Amino acid sequence: MRALLFHAEEYGVSFHSFANRPKGIFKEDVNGKEEQSCNNCVVAFITIEKGDNKKKVSESITKEIKKMCDEVKRDKAVVVPFAHLSNNLCEPKKSFEILEEIENKLKEMKLKTIRTHFGSNKSLHLDIYGHTGNARYREF
Amino acid sequence: MRALLFHAEEYGVSFHSFANRPKGIFKEDVNGKEEQSCNNCVVAFITIEKGDNKKKVSESITKEIKKMCDEVKRDKAVVVPFAHLSNNLCEPKKSFEILEEIENKLKEMKLKTIRTHFGSNKSLHLDIYGHTGNARYREF
Repeated sequence: MRALLFHAEEYGVSFHSFANRPKGIFKEDVNGKEEQSCNNCVVAFITIEKGDNKKKVSESITKEIKKMCDEVKRDKAVVVPFAHLSNNLCEPKKSFEILEEIENKLKEMKLKTIRTHFGSNKSLHLDIYGHTGNARYREF
Repeated sequence: MRALLFHAEEYGVSFHSFANRPKGIFKEDVNGKEEQSCNNCVVAFITIEKGDNKKKVSESITKEIKKMCDEVKRDKAVVVPFAHLSNNLCEPKKSFEILEEIENKLKEMKLKTIRTHFGSNKSLHLDIYGHTGNARYREF
């Protein structure tokens, strides 16, 4: 797993079209996920890689997201499925399951959590704060 | 080298403060780079890694940026020094030299090119188009 975390002043996403790649892409039902937005929150762009262990990586990344939320004193997180931090992508259906697990774990941690649609091209709006530690890279 | 390329409707950046990490961080003179913006352009977030060969990686990434500019029919590129795509960072001064080389090569290719300030915390504004191929990951 590779992940890029931002402390965002604004996050917004709009569904554009279903993705046709990578091969075998899983397309989640788009219902309710056409448009999403969040202000002053931690946004995690997450790439699931081949061989990732669901339990291990979901525990590691949720711990990091919670830590960053605590540091910036916010209780809102966004989980963004993102296929652009690695060339060693996990099979789409398994990636989706791990991302759902991450979403569920964050909710259990009492973070207000949204997860962005899986399997689509999306337009993206991001305003990132400029303070130290506004962007973090993690590999597990 | 690792790089994340976006076709951006809007890109904007504001200098916030000089960075204090990683250790030995090189801080470029900020003069003229306090605020930068660009519309409808290819934005390349680039992380230089230990062992990167200046000539090889700068040729590879500029080729990819030019290809993406051609595909989206734009002649504007933004080079963003970005330390958050790898944990294997190159020494800062050498990273800076490679990023300058990339900037120069893109200008030689007749792309209108801006390079974002090196060695600072910055706030960031991004609006990414939603079309297929709007985001690309590359490793060299």
